[in-house]
Amino acid sequence: MEGEKAKGNCLAWAARDPSGILSPYQFDRRAVGSDDVALEIKYCGVCYADVYSTRHQPNGTIYPLVPGHEITGVVTEVGSNVTQFKVGDHVGVGTYVNSCKDCERCSKFLEVHCKKVVFTFNGIDYDGTITKGGYSSLIVVHERYCFKIPDGYPLEFAAPLLCAGITVYKPMMHHKMNQPGKSLGVVGLGGLGHMAVKFGKAFGLNVTVFSTSESKRDEAINILGAEKFVLSSDTQQMQEMESKLDFIVDTAAGDHPLDPYLNMLDVHGIMVLVGFPSEIKLSPISLSIGARNLAGSVTGGTKDTQSMLEYCAAHKIYPKIELIKINYINEALERMIKNDVKYRFVIDIENSFK
Amino acid sequence: MEGEKAKGNCLAWAARDPSGILSPYQFDRRAVGSDDVALEIKYCGVCYADVYSTRHQPNGTIYPLVPGHEITGVVTEVGSNVTQFKVGDHVGVGTYVNSCKDCERCSKFLEVHCKKVVFTFNGIDYDGTITKGGYSSLIVVHERYCFKIPDGYPLEFAAPLLCAGITVYKPMMHHKMNQPGKSLGVVGLGGLGHMAVKFGKAFGLNVTVFSTSESKRDEAINILGAEKFVLSSDTQQMQEMESKLDFIVDTAAGDHPLDPYLNMLDVHGIMVLVGFPSEIKLSPISLSIGARNLAGSVTGGTKDTQSMLEYCAAHKIYPKIELIKINYINEALERMIKNDVKYRFVIDIENSFK
Repeated sequence: MEGEKAKGNCLAWAARDPSGILSPYQFDRRAVGSDDVALEIKYCGVCYADVYSTRHQPNGTIYPLVPGHEITGVVTEVGSNVTQFKVGDHVGVGTYVNSCKDCERCSKFLEVHCKKVVFTFNGIDYDGTITKGGYSSLIVVHERYCFKIPDGYPLEFAAPLLCAGITVYKPMMHHKMNQPGKSLGVVGLGGLGHMAVKFGKAFGLNVTVFSTSESKRDEAINILGAEKFVLSSDTQQMQEMESKLDFIVDTAAGDHPLDPYLNMLDVHGIMVLVGFPSEIKLSPISLSIGARNLAGSVTGGTKDTQSMLEYCAAHKIYPKIELIKINYINEALERMIKNDVKYRFVIDIENSFK
Repeated sequence: MEGEKAKGNCLAWAARDPSGILSPYQFDRRAVGSDDVALEIKYCGVCYADVYSTRHQPNGTIYPLVPGHEITGVVTEVGSNVTQFKVGDHVGVGTYVNSCKDCERCSKFLEVHCKKVVFTFNGIDYDGTITKGGYSSLIVVHERYCFKIPDGYPLEFAAPLLCAGITVYKPMMHHKMNQPGKSLGVVGLGGLGHMAVKFGKAFGLNVTVFSTSESKRDEAINILGAEKFVLSSDTQQMQEMESKLDFIVDTAAGDHPLDPYLNMLDVHGIMVLVGFPSEIKLSPISLSIGARNLAGSVTGGTKDTQSMLEYCAAHKIYPKIELIKINYINEALERMIKNDVKYRFVIDIENSFK
């Protein structure tokens, strides 16, 4: 018994060093506390953060690192104080698993901005343990950071909503981009970009997709329903978009010039950056002419996340996913880096650890 | 008669070349058209744009150039269609004197963003003439671009409102900075900055002034009523402001790092740039952490300008000015470049051309 316990109650895959190569790993999840929910993980989405954290060691990566913060599953146990969930519920866990619950930001349900937020993996939780993500068979989490997946919404599709989905939904709602008839530009058509197009269409926006890759045109127009596609290397087409957009969601991760996009905004237009370029450089005129706005964003708080899940269920918004088993993960991460996925890998956790 | 007329009906001072040195000049204002208002200019504020245009030749300066776009005076004649003004009214003219009146922007009273806006000086008006500003004895303008100065509001104080005032008031209102109890940072304490402090106080905000000059501390706190003063070269004081502000109005004209200021914004905080640095460079993290916003702005449309004038009258907001005669203008421009003015030069036009 003692020997088995030492191996841990949770099966997972972890990166062991900056190569970022993942391999099987086993560890213990904590016992279910009075405010906790335990879930058997069914699916976990694969986010660019998973590569970034394992390989680029932001804030000192602690190995072994179990990535994954787009987690869905089924409740297996609840603590004595838990009121929102019961065994058998379909639930999700996103990018954070704890916060102080006490500060002004937490009180406004902006937990992701709490100074003591604990991220779902590679974070140090309040009990001193290093958090481990959803490339694993189970997770235990305070009920506040657990989300109800609406009835009938498939858990494999719900997974990418918990990072990619909320990351674009939250700033779109905050900046009132849900005004039918307005125009939206979406820069980059990957995990985040394709969700921005889907939300844009659901909000009744006129959507233009910008991509460096002509191969995305057909998908953007005919599958995702965007009104327009612009190849971002085509200077003339780009210039013709001057002042044509009310909003832009820029999901491109690499460095790219922002002035050409800002110039596409109409008066008071808003561009939100949800990708992570290494530096922002622009001409002040791109902001002052047209009184334009450049905003940043990072996922969303618990209330916004729950609202987003319900919005997706009510409007039948489903991410486009490629389902994989965990033993394909290293290849999947390489393909993701090359943008070779339409549009989100989701790990079939249940069938990976059988 | 013919000889006199050739000299022109309007006395002015103009720059003749890129030295920017101004000297007496005389020219003809157009006859009053059916939609026009003619005014005898009483005062004209001195704006940094006056130096910039005469010396740096943006978009090809056309000499002789008569600067000045903070104009107040008294109506001397109105055209047959004019309904809003009558002879003897106290009025003002700001940074633009014409626009197409037909586009979506004009229809929304965002005339300053009209693609065919005509600026008050160094612009080409629809009749082909080069516009000439308020360093002159009279001006003729379409009534749409003429503002009513509220009864009892002194014309010398009203002048700086027409550029400096509206330039800060407009973005502050647009970004809902008029929420009592919120906190405002004002970067730079010059013509625009001191107006931002005054509006901030009137809106019930808790105001912190940032300046490179310790000499501004007393004025900021004891005269303008700011709650706090931070010397921007004091790294520790700057760092202590992290996440402390809801809004920032950055009026600094020169290049300066933006990251330290963005980091002072609380979640969803908004920083508006109204100065003109040559380039914007910042870390994307400064925007993404805290979901912050960086916005540009340029003065305001006709409705906002009229509202601002009425707000200033109702709340007894007066710019702090130094009244000069036109023959002091070259010295005044030099002093303005050195920030040696509290806080706006205003030319006493009436007594300059007597």
